[in-house]
Amino acid sequence: MTKLIEYEEASEEVRAVYDDIRATRQNDYINNFWKAIANHPPTLQRTWQAVKEVMTGPGEIDPLMRELIYIAVSATNGCEYCIASHTAGARAKGMDDTMFGELMAIAATANMTNRLANGYQIPVDERFKT
Amino acid sequence: MTKLIEYEEASEEVRAVYDDIRATRQNDYINNFWKAIANHPPTLQRTWQAVKEVMTGPGEIDPLMRELIYIAVSATNGCEYCIASHTAGARAKGMDDTMFGELMAIAATANMTNRLANGYQIPVDERFKT
Amino acid sequence: MTKLIEYEEASEEVRAVYDDIRATRQNDYINNFWKAIANHPPTLQRTWQAVKEVMTGPGEIDPLMRELIYIAVSATNGCEYCIASHTAGARAKGMDDTMFGELMAIAATANMTNRLANGYQIPVDERFKT
Amino acid sequence: MTKLIEYEEASEEVRAVYDDIRATRQNDYINNFWKAIANHPPTLQRTWQAVKEVMTGPGEIDPLMRELIYIAVSATNGCEYCIASHTAGARAKGMDDTMFGELMAIAATANMTNRLANGYQIPVDERFKT
Amino acid sequence: MTKLIEYEEASEEVRAVYDDIRATRQNDYINNFWKAIANHPPTLQRTWQAVKEVMTGPGEIDPLMRELIYIAVSATNGCEYCIASHTAGARAKGMDDTMFGELMAIAATANMTNRLANGYQIPVDERFKT
Amino acid sequence: MTKLIEYEEASEEVRAVYDDIRATRQNDYINNFWKAIANHPPTLQRTWQAVKEVMTGPGEIDPLMRELIYIAVSATNGCEYCIASHTAGARAKGMDDTMFGELMAIAATANMTNRLANGYQIPVDERFKT
Repeated sequence: MTKLIEYEEASEEVRAVYDDIRATRQNDYINNFWKAIANHPPTLQRTWQAVKEVMTGPGEIDPLMRELIYIAVSATNGCEYCIASHTAGARAKGMDDTMFGELMAIAATANMTNRLANGYQIPVDERFKT
Repeated sequence: MTKLIEYEEASEEVRAVYDDIRATRQNDYINNFWKAIANHPPTLQRTWQAVKEVMTGPGEIDPLMRELIYIAVSATNGCEYCIASHTAGARAKGMDDTMFGELMAIAATANMTNRLANGYQIPVDERFKT
Repeated sequence: MTKLIEYEEASEEVRAVYDDIRATRQNDYINNFWKAIANHPPTLQRTWQAVKEVMTGPGEIDPLMRELIYIAVSATNGCEYCIASHTAGARAKGMDDTMFGELMAIAATANMTNRLANGYQIPVDERFKT
Repeated sequence: MTKLIEYEEASEEVRAVYDDIRATRQNDYINNFWKAIANHPPTLQRTWQAVKEVMTGPGEIDPLMRELIYIAVSATNGCEYCIASHTAGARAKGMDDTMFGELMAIAATANMTNRLANGYQIPVDERFKT
Repeated sequence: MTKLIEYEEASEEVRAVYDDIRATRQNDYINNFWKAIANHPPTLQRTWQAVKEVMTGPGEIDPLMRELIYIAVSATNGCEYCIASHTAGARAKGMDDTMFGELMAIAATANMTNRLANGYQIPVDERFKT
Repeated sequence: MTKLIEYEEASEEVRAVYDDIRATRQNDYINNFWKAIANHPPTLQRTWQAVKEVMTGPGEIDPLMRELIYIAVSATNGCEYCIASHTAGARAKGMDDTMFGELMAIAATANMTNRLANGYQIPVDERFKT
């Protein structure tokens, strides 16, 4: 188990990231993920910067859909922490049980057909190569 | 390499699935995935039924977003065939280079944070458990 | 691409493994997997010893079923080489198209339900814990 | 944590699936997997239909061997729930400690050689391509 | 949960492995991994032999670096047990919080770029093929 | 297949990244990975920044060891492009066949024991939890 770095005991560079997380999310809560990777400040800074840009920056994909994509990847990898935190995030953005069920169905079906394609060693159609 | 079952040589039960694929997609092209798994007709039938329901049935998630989720899972698993075929499918539904770039950025970031969460053995926050 | 070590140019310790592969399989063909890992003789020796014991030694699981399990894992991991070589091995031991189709269906279904179990964060039933 | 849907509070369509699970297995117990995915009835119906056909339908692969294949995939993916439930299922069908040990040895060896084949970038032998 | 085989109740062949673990590590503690796989003595013997050779034998890669590689793989696969045990092992060999943070950053970055390379279907440069 | 963006046709922001890659590596060659993700400039910028910091910045882990860790992760994920490019990178930094063989042996062994730990559902030792 990793030590979680609380705001009060954090260095200035870590506090700066925590402050930005709070301002970006308009919420004081810092979840354990950030408190854990704060043990290595450069990783905290780089990771927060990436998550902030990718998940909250302007873009063509709707913020709720971004959360769904995140959950689909996390369920595929079996990352318990990421499934729990992003499911909470998606619910806060409006995901209900039906949408979650549809998401799980898509992710599960993709995992199924991925292995059929692998196992049957199926050549990519010419028309999909361009 | 698996033998691909062409329509002309297919059994009646396989042809019925091919006919439904064509009708559902309003397109005569049957891609190699179906021609390969047609070597085992029950798997062809069950898999097409699932893909049809999950990817084309009514639901809260937009058909283009469903393709994005499919691609994110397939890129995570490294399934070359599925990446190629669903990228083509998403482009046909309107995905441009920017949307694809955003999708890849989300999938890549999720794969990155999944491993940080695993490696740091981060406990799930109480508030994410309910 | 790794250099493949042919018998003629192999060191004595590598030849000894190649000889044992030929004797165990009663077949002169050495497939590329062994010729590649022969670049590191201790890995060649240890890996062949493990594969020989696990796949050809006495045991409760039938040799053909062992090949099916191997293929299921390899399809899950997307290892093209291992899928191709063990599918050939299973066919040589009697696997036909129907059995391969059933195997793919089981592996695909397991990959599907694995992600549903992950995504829904399902607690293990008490009765499965003992 | 997902809410588990008990029989008493379930909708009619969910109860119909639960009834079929009980009849097929000749056992009243509904395990948590089904109670969790019952939050999305179409996923419950489709998934049960697939598992029923693939795991209990007629076929060339013995029901116990099907469980072993399922466990090998689940251990490869690290799905704790599926490992626990299918290990219980396999034990009920006759798997003892030795058979489980052999299964783990095969799955572990395949996972090992899969990475050697990947890492050494080994070309597939011509004879394995047909 | 698997029964853990304690030294006192172990068979002679299992005790011989436990004795060798203790002698090799110059430490009396046998961790749960070995006590669990001792349920299948041939797997215990083969696995210990491999781990002993690969992790403690002579070689060009420093023992601490071997532990880091092990952790990177285990974090990629999400194996909680292996992450915990090898993190303890690496700390005993001198890994501090900064080195662990760097390791996690490398593993996370590799997992990120692996999916970009997959998703963008990037052809291998000619110069990397030789 | 993704279009590769050559320097001559690149936008100014993309050229700035290419220039930094060349300056950092003291080598004019831009490999396909960067030319592909240049289709989405923010992903190109963020990814290069991360790779540059993590792989070439100051730190406790030797640059060659960083490449080995990268390869171990890429082999575990089966990312052909990343295996090929980072193997070339490691060889340029001094990796010989023996060191590569040792690396593969460690990665393969970790993949093996990861699945034994998963499959046997081994509880983490108390002493590894602190």
